[in-house]
Amino acid sequence: MQTLQVDLGERSYPIYIGAGLLDRAECIVPHLAGRQVAVVTNETVAPLYLKRLSQTLAGHELTPIVLPDGEVFKHWETLQKVFDGLLEARHDRRTTLIALGGGVVGDMAGFAAACYQRGVDFIQIPTTLLSQVDSSVGGKTGINHPLGKNMIGAFYQPKAVVIDTATLATLPERELSAGLAEVIKYGLICDESFLGWLETHMAALRALDAAALTEAIARSCAAKARVVGVDERESGVRATLNLGHTFGHAIETHMGYGAWLHGEAVAAGSVMALEMSRRLGWLGEAERDRGIRLLQHAGLPVVPPAQMSADDFLGHMAVDKKVLGGRLRLVLLRRLGEAVVTGDFPHEALQATLDTDYRTLMEQISH
Amino acid sequence: MQTLQVDLGERSYPIYIGAGLLDRAECIVPHLAGRQVAVVTNETVAPLYLKRLSQTLAGHELTPIVLPDGEVFKHWETLQKVFDGLLEARHDRRTTLIALGGGVVGDMAGFAAACYQRGVDFIQIPTTLLSQVDSSVGGKTGINHPLGKNMIGAFYQPKAVVIDTATLATLPERELSAGLAEVIKYGLICDESFLGWLETHMAALRALDAAALTEAIARSCAAKARVVGVDERESGVRATLNLGHTFGHAIETHMGYGAWLHGEAVAAGSVMALEMSRRLGWLGEAERDRGIRLLQHAGLPVVPPAQMSADDFLGHMAVDKKVLGGRLRLVLLRRLGEAVVTGDFPHEALQATLDTDYRTLMEQISH
Repeated sequence: MQTLQVDLGERSYPIYIGAGLLDRAECIVPHLAGRQVAVVTNETVAPLYLKRLSQTLAGHELTPIVLPDGEVFKHWETLQKVFDGLLEARHDRRTTLIALGGGVVGDMAGFAAACYQRGVDFIQIPTTLLSQVDSSVGGKTGINHPLGKNMIGAFYQPKAVVIDTATLATLPERELSAGLAEVIKYGLICDESFLGWLETHMAALRALDAAALTEAIARSCAAKARVVGVDERESGVRATLNLGHTFGHAIETHMGYGAWLHGEAVAAGSVMALEMSRRLGWLGEAERDRGIRLLQHAGLPVVPPAQMSADDFLGHMAVDKKVLGGRLRLVLLRRLGEAVVTGDFPHEALQATLDTDYRTLMEQISH
Repeated sequence: MQTLQVDLGERSYPIYIGAGLLDRAECIVPHLAGRQVAVVTNETVAPLYLKRLSQTLAGHELTPIVLPDGEVFKHWETLQKVFDGLLEARHDRRTTLIALGGGVVGDMAGFAAACYQRGVDFIQIPTTLLSQVDSSVGGKTGINHPLGKNMIGAFYQPKAVVIDTATLATLPERELSAGLAEVIKYGLICDESFLGWLETHMAALRALDAAALTEAIARSCAAKARVVGVDERESGVRATLNLGHTFGHAIETHMGYGAWLHGEAVAAGSVMALEMSRRLGWLGEAERDRGIRLLQHAGLPVVPPAQMSADDFLGHMAVDKKVLGGRLRLVLLRRLGEAVVTGDFPHEALQATLDTDYRTLMEQISH
């Protein structure tokens, strides 16, 4: 088991990473506020892991709250089911919510914990690669609004993150790839040597090699913990974690939540950020293509939806949270391994990036 | 104009109190984060004060968001209208929400500010006595759930509270009385000399004497600011501000939100707390009756609803936020001017308090 620490003063918390942690009470029980525990999970994960977690928490007053599975359900009506479950079982302020599932479960359980009786404790037990390397760490919680993703939420830190790498054995291959999009992101924005490691180990990761997974997850979480430790509320460097996300959110919103997996949209969005960075002269073609190939080797889509026009993108991006004072800001790469958040670019570069024929570009790259 | 300060480190903020502050840009504009402003108000207050506030904020990009009026609308569906309004007008993270109205508007606008894009600035401009002396100060925000009042919310502090005492001229008499319930509460829990002042000035307050109102509001806000400054998240002394509220919330929930005004339920609940404190031997009959008479002179109900049984109260109180580890805790009075939060009382004292025939008690007191 590896243990990392997210340093946030009195809101600091540990991240435990290892195979079989679901059965290790010593990783979970010390972080419970009292006897009451509500396990928030979904219809896919509950049959796989709820019983094991319940056994690990034997002796506690446990309320399972099983939500429908999917990003399309990440809205208020589903969140309300969490509040219903807590109130019907009379959970008080000393209850602890445990998020058992992927990013949607974690975002909703975390936001529910932030709001229930104005704030109760919660623990993240992420069961997808994407949530293990990204959304479970850092305290971003929330739900979607018909007019925008994650528009309603809170910064609210968990008391612990417990990552059982063995849960990835039940993860569909498509979702494993989606998680790899965020893993690759860390290499692109802050760790060029990690990019090299990933190029060497991509096949092992996709084959669920335990040691490779643990290493990739630990390096990703360490990168995220470093960034969150210096910028919890995203006033600066934390925004670099959103590489590919502004373009990606536009894809997710336009296509309807759930049609593209978040990681898939981030992958296509990262391709657009790579291309725009090249157009600004910050990356060469070879560097751009190195990033794109790594995403391809992870089994990810690298071409945005054909039916989305530049204007479609611009419309969705105008409500993005990184718009400040009317100016659109994007995460771009100064070089591989170094991201910047900037609104200081000519509109023509963005327009050209949106107008690019990515299908043709990919054909050129693969030749 | 009087200025008080709520001391909460980097979350400190001023409270301005005076007649005509709605027209004083210097109290409001310095606290805006950027050009975008959303004024959240309701159908009753908008025709009275929205235009004046808009003139005071001339030069800003102002989005009015007008909600239906009343506690019955303090739920998610109404809150959603705030998010709709913000997103349709493309408000970004530098927007500022202004709550213009009573406690329901303040609670919802504050919670919306806490959640919109994971937190934006907000300013309280309370227009009812109740919100001026209580809910606008201290950062409690939230909405109701069918199973309990204020069960979903956040601790989220405003950047400023601007109290224009002249707005009380348009307040219905019943709501003025409801506000006086909270004013009297401060005397009961922490300031016996204020009780004496209130006995002398109750008639002046109900006649809207400007000097008396300013004094009563400033003393109430100062008491609240003191308590909040030492216990923002209600882990201790802040809970004493809930004198009468556990009983009162049971009344509000049982009768349906809005049937009893919050202050009216608090008044009847305070009578029950006074009676229980007498049963525990902490107050004499004369002290209990002094508190009850002051509530009566403020025009408030002092008898709980005849149709509510002791079991009705106990059922509702079991989901109260002051239940910790299964134990019901109540705010009671050790003496006039000194409150305690305690679960250390014989159940018989509570049962007898709930079984008391308050109608008959009032007849005895008035003789």
